[in-house]
Amino acid sequence: MIRFGLLGAGRIGQIHGRNIAASPAAKLVLIADPIADAAGRLASATHARIGEIDEIVGSDEIDAVVICTPTDTHAELIERAAAAGKAIFCEKPVDLSSDRIRATLARIGDAPLMIGFNRRFDPNFASLKHRIEGGDVGDVELVTILSRDPAPPPVSYIERSGGLFRDMMIHDFDMARFLVGEDFVEVQAVGSALVDPAIGAAGDVDTAAVLMKTASGKICQISCSRRATYGYDQRIEVHGSKGLLKAENVPQTTVVLADARGVSADPVQNFFLERYARAYEHELNYFIDRLSKGEPMRPSGTDGLQAGILADAATTSATEGRLVRV
Amino acid sequence: MIRFGLLGAGRIGQIHGRNIAASPAAKLVLIADPIADAAGRLASATHARIGEIDEIVGSDEIDAVVICTPTDTHAELIERAAAAGKAIFCEKPVDLSSDRIRATLARIGDAPLMIGFNRRFDPNFASLKHRIEGGDVGDVELVTILSRDPAPPPVSYIERSGGLFRDMMIHDFDMARFLVGEDFVEVQAVGSALVDPAIGAAGDVDTAAVLMKTASGKICQISCSRRATYGYDQRIEVHGSKGLLKAENVPQTTVVLADARGVSADPVQNFFLERYARAYEHELNYFIDRLSKGEPMRPSGTDGLQAGILADAATTSATEGRLVRV
Amino acid sequence: MIRFGLLGAGRIGQIHGRNIAASPAAKLVLIADPIADAAGRLASATHARIGEIDEIVGSDEIDAVVICTPTDTHAELIERAAAAGKAIFCEKPVDLSSDRIRATLARIGDAPLMIGFNRRFDPNFASLKHRIEGGDVGDVELVTILSRDPAPPPVSYIERSGGLFRDMMIHDFDMARFLVGEDFVEVQAVGSALVDPAIGAAGDVDTAAVLMKTASGKICQISCSRRATYGYDQRIEVHGSKGLLKAENVPQTTVVLADARGVSADPVQNFFLERYARAYEHELNYFIDRLSKGEPMRPSGTDGLQAGILADAATTSATEGRLVRV
Amino acid sequence: MIRFGLLGAGRIGQIHGRNIAASPAAKLVLIADPIADAAGRLASATHARIGEIDEIVGSDEIDAVVICTPTDTHAELIERAAAAGKAIFCEKPVDLSSDRIRATLARIGDAPLMIGFNRRFDPNFASLKHRIEGGDVGDVELVTILSRDPAPPPVSYIERSGGLFRDMMIHDFDMARFLVGEDFVEVQAVGSALVDPAIGAAGDVDTAAVLMKTASGKICQISCSRRATYGYDQRIEVHGSKGLLKAENVPQTTVVLADARGVSADPVQNFFLERYARAYEHELNYFIDRLSKGEPMRPSGTDGLQAGILADAATTSATEGRLVRV
Repeated sequence: MIRFGLLGAGRIGQIHGRNIAASPAAKLVLIADPIADAAGRLASATHARIGEIDEIVGSDEIDAVVICTPTDTHAELIERAAAAGKAIFCEKPVDLSSDRIRATLARIGDAPLMIGFNRRFDPNFASLKHRIEGGDVGDVELVTILSRDPAPPPVSYIERSGGLFRDMMIHDFDMARFLVGEDFVEVQAVGSALVDPAIGAAGDVDTAAVLMKTASGKICQISCSRRATYGYDQRIEVHGSKGLLKAENVPQTTVVLADARGVSADPVQNFFLERYARAYEHELNYFIDRLSKGEPMRPSGTDGLQAGILADAATTSATEGRLVRV
Repeated sequence: MIRFGLLGAGRIGQIHGRNIAASPAAKLVLIADPIADAAGRLASATHARIGEIDEIVGSDEIDAVVICTPTDTHAELIERAAAAGKAIFCEKPVDLSSDRIRATLARIGDAPLMIGFNRRFDPNFASLKHRIEGGDVGDVELVTILSRDPAPPPVSYIERSGGLFRDMMIHDFDMARFLVGEDFVEVQAVGSALVDPAIGAAGDVDTAAVLMKTASGKICQISCSRRATYGYDQRIEVHGSKGLLKAENVPQTTVVLADARGVSADPVQNFFLERYARAYEHELNYFIDRLSKGEPMRPSGTDGLQAGILADAATTSATEGRLVRV
Repeated sequence: MIRFGLLGAGRIGQIHGRNIAASPAAKLVLIADPIADAAGRLASATHARIGEIDEIVGSDEIDAVVICTPTDTHAELIERAAAAGKAIFCEKPVDLSSDRIRATLARIGDAPLMIGFNRRFDPNFASLKHRIEGGDVGDVELVTILSRDPAPPPVSYIERSGGLFRDMMIHDFDMARFLVGEDFVEVQAVGSALVDPAIGAAGDVDTAAVLMKTASGKICQISCSRRATYGYDQRIEVHGSKGLLKAENVPQTTVVLADARGVSADPVQNFFLERYARAYEHELNYFIDRLSKGEPMRPSGTDGLQAGILADAATTSATEGRLVRV
Repeated sequence: MIRFGLLGAGRIGQIHGRNIAASPAAKLVLIADPIADAAGRLASATHARIGEIDEIVGSDEIDAVVICTPTDTHAELIERAAAAGKAIFCEKPVDLSSDRIRATLARIGDAPLMIGFNRRFDPNFASLKHRIEGGDVGDVELVTILSRDPAPPPVSYIERSGGLFRDMMIHDFDMARFLVGEDFVEVQAVGSALVDPAIGAAGDVDTAAVLMKTASGKICQISCSRRATYGYDQRIEVHGSKGLLKAENVPQTTVVLADARGVSADPVQNFFLERYARAYEHELNYFIDRLSKGEPMRPSGTDGLQAGILADAATTSATEGRLVRV
């Protein structure tokens, strides 16, 4: 039975907390959040106690911490938890600065650390990976990843986000590495503010695309937008020597209407918490399972670092109009 | 807060029990099952107590009972629970004899009773119904319902089941009434034992189809089979004056492989507990909600009776080779 | 080189005439039609001459006749052409009376005769048949055929049509026999006038469904409607011991729009001449090929008769409200 | 009636020749090809005469020439035909050198010239364009174009082809301009030889991707491969402010098999002559129609030049590893 402390009971913390509580192999013991109401709701739903971050990180009752606090606290909390001998699950990104991530990883050594790239655990994308490894497409040659959010976040969020490449496309960089199985050495990127001029005025982009190549010549295309009128668009294509594997969107229902205007299906699931509900559940169960068995876990801190490095490179490429070698 | 007693902790009882326990508006208080292990597993998962049927039906602590016992006990338990002033949720079918159902409904008067035709609460079929009522297809003219189980049950089960029309197609008869919104007055049916000759030797069929008409001329086609190699096939088409609404199957993932053999998607979800997990959840929540508000609930006992009458008619039609008027 | 005479240059005659002219193994020599303009248009497009029916049937220049005249002339023309030693391609139905068809077949003996059930030659349905024979679904158990026309014909046409079962569903009866590979021995049918009351007033139905069984227990469901707002709906499902084969509709384009209202594809092809253009072409080429090789051809006169017998049975069943044994 | 001369009766010439012959508004008068058999086959199918290039270009009997000769002859033939007062339809690419194209366009002035970017006339892609112009997706923001050939051409062909970007992706550059409606000012490209090392040894790539941006910030992604095991893959997505329009592949049939392995559709159409048969037909009819009316036609020589400039830029970008401004 793994005993958990949860740091941060916001939107994601509520999900991880409930998934821990529902696991027969884990127990949610303590929750910390400066907003009493958030902590209280989760505590009452999970029978956990409310505590302080310091208390949780230092507690003998706690085997593992789940870090869902604001990004700028992640690195320090990872370091403190590791120093206290805790296993760590930390939400992405580890930090907006790759140098800071590097320093943290150096400090914590081989403490168990898993980064919350939840999409690896989505049943559709996990099936893609499983079937690539099973040889369904032969050698991977070209991967195309598309991510579009239903609507942009507030500009106030964007201003502190590190920019689209670090905040949003970070998931796609991790997915690219996950599916291709090699590191990328060349990054080219473009970005535009087409959805909302205020995003451009804040120094960011809302529509962007990236082109990357590995040393062996494998190619990855990524595109992101902060807007999709038809729902949360999350699709991947993997082209290989033997064929194509793709993961399509998940529709809200399977109902189809045929009438004089054509043949119409439902919009795709609109919200990431709905689309990735099972991914979050599988992710935490995997962490619990690996920790219980003392086995290494992925995505690792290094995976978090590598995604950050690609995000930095894309930011530079789009800003300076040049290919960036990693 | 509705306080529940659960009678029967088998496969379906386990689901209903957990769904009650997860509802903030309900509490699972007592569970009865002659198999101690089944009752125990559910009790430990839900913090409910284990009791006896008599105790539960008579208990002041219980507002509503959920009846998941074998079919031949349903009618009597409904009557006893109603006499004790309990609200009742009873699994389908109410009884294999329509006369018995009629007698039970007469005895219980207007006691709150809901029958477990879970498919009405499947998000896809519920959306069909909602959109029919919203006018998407105009006047309904012809409905086609297809149900195929992945594999036949044991012949020992079939022998006591009342036959395919009463055991399996009962869901489709209810769905037909639900979607068409009128009662059927003519029933024609055929059945064959094509999947397993032992089913035929037991006096039943495993492949069957029904043709029904309402007084106003609306038509319904149903087909059922005890086997589908590709998963649990559950599809509906509703043709109306303005168009066609259909509900397709739910695939296991959205992953598609294109290679030299063609373009291949995953099999559809294979098991009714997976396919209808959300339907069971919505069904109990609806019962709890209606009961809390003191509002009438559907599918009612009369819906259970009408489905039984159609199943009887189809059985007669297939056996005697003639149209049966209802 | 097969030399053809074409009797009747209406809508279908224009198509067959052009397909003959385009074949390198055939030559369209003579055309007859009482409407000079129809004959003239086809003659100028194909470099054929215009003649009279008597002349064509008796001509030494003609090896084969294609009969596209009104239904009530088919049987007599078949008999005359056979007597003159011509091979015959005749549009469906052979006659509205099965007795008349029987008499004609008896008179012509083994003269080469093919009936124009064009749907057997549609690439999609031909692929279904080919794959059934290749064992893709194992033993066929249940076939579901759906045919819906975009809009009803004029009531004046319906009055002389022989009724929906003989005029429209005749194609589906032939398709059922083609795919199942056995003759049906039981027919149950219902029909309603839901699309247009004038059709009901004319003694016909516009919405109908049929349920049939073979001696070995294989089941077929057919449904037809004289209206489909979304285009010409032509779909088939074949369920067998190993799986399901289905043929879906053909969309006008492959373009899909995803927006706030959902995910919308084009309507399906709307007109039978568009949907079945390739079927008509393949049909005539098959006739030419078989005739050139002196090989027997299908659908035969007997196929035409059997479809007519099923149409009669369905008409009786729907009218009298009883199962009809064939 | 437009009188045509056809220069080059190879694979594409055979198609254009037959499409001209089938048009009621055009007549194929003369054909030239150094291979007597190719010219002969087309002449006998179309009732055209065989001649020499010089004769055709200078003939008073000819209003328009269709140039389907090898690429390195296009520019000169365009110039000679324009000088002789003929209207010109020329296969793509105009020339492998953009400078040569520029010079040719300068020399011919406003002689009627249309370039054979056939994909603009594919019913699916034409519908995309039509619906973009109709406002279905609002302002275009990001376009993704994918082209994959079933199998690579011989290396001997590749050596003289100008490279993948000029030979194969030229279609996609034109399509990008066609759909986005603006010129691109930045081009970034990568390419690898993953399909066949011999292609790499010949100095070319077989797998490539491009990222482009217009001055207003619109983005286009293109990917190409010389291999697709599942058929000729030709898909486009257009993301705009109001939604997404996409054109999917065309399957060989609409037949689907569901069995224990999943749900399988046919491979997509495998050969460009099959996939684009209607595009070639519409293309020539458009040329004939425009010429008959004396109206300007697109894709123009300038469209041919602009696609060539983008292909040059992509070649440079992939070779030198840098963003190229156009």
